[in-house]
Amino acid sequence: MYKTHGYAANDANTPLAAFDIERRDVREHDVQIEVLFCGVCHSDLHQARNEWRNTIYPVVPGHEIVGRVTKVGAGVTRYKSGDLVGVGCLVDSCRTCASCAEGLEQYCENGWVGTYNGVDRVSGEITYGGYSTSVVVDEAFVLSVPDNLDPAGAAPLLCAGITTYSPLRQWGAGPGKKVGIVGLGGLGHMGVKLARAMGAHVVLFTTSPSKVEDAKRLGAHEVVISKDPAQMQAHANSFDFILNTVAAQHDLNPFIELLKRDATMTLVGAPEHDHPSPQVFNLILKRRRLAGSLIGGIAETQEMLDFCGQHGITSDIEIIPMQNINQAYDRMLKSDVKYRFVIDLDSLRQ
Amino acid sequence: MYKTHGYAANDANTPLAAFDIERRDVREHDVQIEVLFCGVCHSDLHQARNEWRNTIYPVVPGHEIVGRVTKVGAGVTRYKSGDLVGVGCLVDSCRTCASCAEGLEQYCENGWVGTYNGVDRVSGEITYGGYSTSVVVDEAFVLSVPDNLDPAGAAPLLCAGITTYSPLRQWGAGPGKKVGIVGLGGLGHMGVKLARAMGAHVVLFTTSPSKVEDAKRLGAHEVVISKDPAQMQAHANSFDFILNTVAAQHDLNPFIELLKRDATMTLVGAPEHDHPSPQVFNLILKRRRLAGSLIGGIAETQEMLDFCGQHGITSDIEIIPMQNINQAYDRMLKSDVKYRFVIDLDSLRQ
Repeated sequence: MYKTHGYAANDANTPLAAFDIERRDVREHDVQIEVLFCGVCHSDLHQARNEWRNTIYPVVPGHEIVGRVTKVGAGVTRYKSGDLVGVGCLVDSCRTCASCAEGLEQYCENGWVGTYNGVDRVSGEITYGGYSTSVVVDEAFVLSVPDNLDPAGAAPLLCAGITTYSPLRQWGAGPGKKVGIVGLGGLGHMGVKLARAMGAHVVLFTTSPSKVEDAKRLGAHEVVISKDPAQMQAHANSFDFILNTVAAQHDLNPFIELLKRDATMTLVGAPEHDHPSPQVFNLILKRRRLAGSLIGGIAETQEMLDFCGQHGITSDIEIIPMQNINQAYDRMLKSDVKYRFVIDLDSLRQ
Repeated sequence: MYKTHGYAANDANTPLAAFDIERRDVREHDVQIEVLFCGVCHSDLHQARNEWRNTIYPVVPGHEIVGRVTKVGAGVTRYKSGDLVGVGCLVDSCRTCASCAEGLEQYCENGWVGTYNGVDRVSGEITYGGYSTSVVVDEAFVLSVPDNLDPAGAAPLLCAGITTYSPLRQWGAGPGKKVGIVGLGGLGHMGVKLARAMGAHVVLFTTSPSKVEDAKRLGAHEVVISKDPAQMQAHANSFDFILNTVAAQHDLNPFIELLKRDATMTLVGAPEHDHPSPQVFNLILKRRRLAGSLIGGIAETQEMLDFCGQHGITSDIEIIPMQNINQAYDRMLKSDVKYRFVIDLDSLRQ
């Protein structure tokens, strides 16, 4: 065992604070990683505050981890000391069910192990995440981060990146396809960059006229103010796919009406209160589909990182020291970030 | 022009009554059909009573038509006098848009022409449906009815049959697949018969314990009382596809939770009031899909009729004379029919 510095929430109602963690020594297939940067995901806040009612305290959040390998177990073949690596939302799964066999560990039928607030399958210990100076993860759940990417900007790819990449790939975003991205936050801005790099015609939907210019800078070919029925109507029945990243409760119908026949809108944001019901006629009359998608599997996450390396894609970020995490949560709740906070873990090493 | 006897609703609030229709003489590609039987679809009642707020009065409902060809236009090549034929929900479409080109006339982007309450593309006249002794339809929208099928039992195939056949085919119902059918009415009982004949393992969901035995007689391998959480839980995450035929407002979540990863529930019933909103987590956590489907195209309707001919499938029906249509509507509203009323048009020829 070795000691590492971290930040934890000790209950749902008090701010995160410094918390020393005992990490396990590397097991045969483990990789020990010095955490350089960790992105701040909305899920971190939900779980720090027990908003999903399943938090085990103390909780050390963080599942958008980029770091350097500092030690490997005797059986590790994929990584060596000094490699730039990443860890996302998962650190283990059963590895034998149909979903795991297909490389879709995020749908593991026996339950995958979260990077934090999960239960280690070997020791039974609670997992602690990337708000810490070092993590230890089985090599099968460690990703290789292309060296040409800025490590801080690459951190959010491990969750925001793969969460948008996976459904864009699943539903065929690419040349000749018209793809909508709803919402320009941490997920949405990655969706715009990725869909653009895939070769699709990208339309960004936002309620905020103030975001139009930035959406275009990020890669959107068109920006539609979704509150304006005339702008929306001009795109009726024209989309091959819409990726809806908005977690706040909203009316899905105006977006469903923009789908072509047989086209899909995928939701990746889970609202605290369900959206108003979509109209069944809107689904029936064009055989449209409403779907969901959860992050991505390990192989697809590596594919996404390699894709981002080839296209030079990282997240737009604001770097903060660990000590500012509580203010960052407050600002995140006000969408006051362009577009992802990333913690510099050097702030805990000084 | 020639005169034919029919029944029409003259406004939303009075019963249907006898109404003589002037039908056009056959145009070059038209087929004149002596109507033998016409099924009674819930849509007929909706439109007779203007519940979709688009009815043009007088309206002569009926789009589950089986009859004999009595005359053909000079350019007709597919049919001759004496042939047993059918007409479903559509009698024309633009024939040039992408959907029509794919044989999906029910999604015609320029608007298909309904068998009744539609506007003829040539003359501009309002179309009158199968509650009449004779109809005239372009041969491209006339189907061949297998001679081995009972003509009365075959009539509901033209709407209830294709509405269930099309999504079952689209989503791969067949050997090795577990398929759920929600609701045992006119659509549901066809869904059970068709899914069984396709080779799927068929599970019927009903709220009525009184329907269990009948569902098994119709072909269901299993019947689940959907109000019983324990029965529902036993099927969690196990369905390859669910066809939901219930038009009444109900909670979709208990059914969505029964879908496997990447599986779809298709809605074919449009409720007067939208269903409560499905939970987004239920879609996200297994990448499930909620979809809609509208009847079927002409080529697929012929495929369905041929399939029914091969498998000896017809609807379970109760034959009524035209004069009893208003009582039939009242009984249909109480689900007091097993499982479809079919009008014997001889009742108007006496």
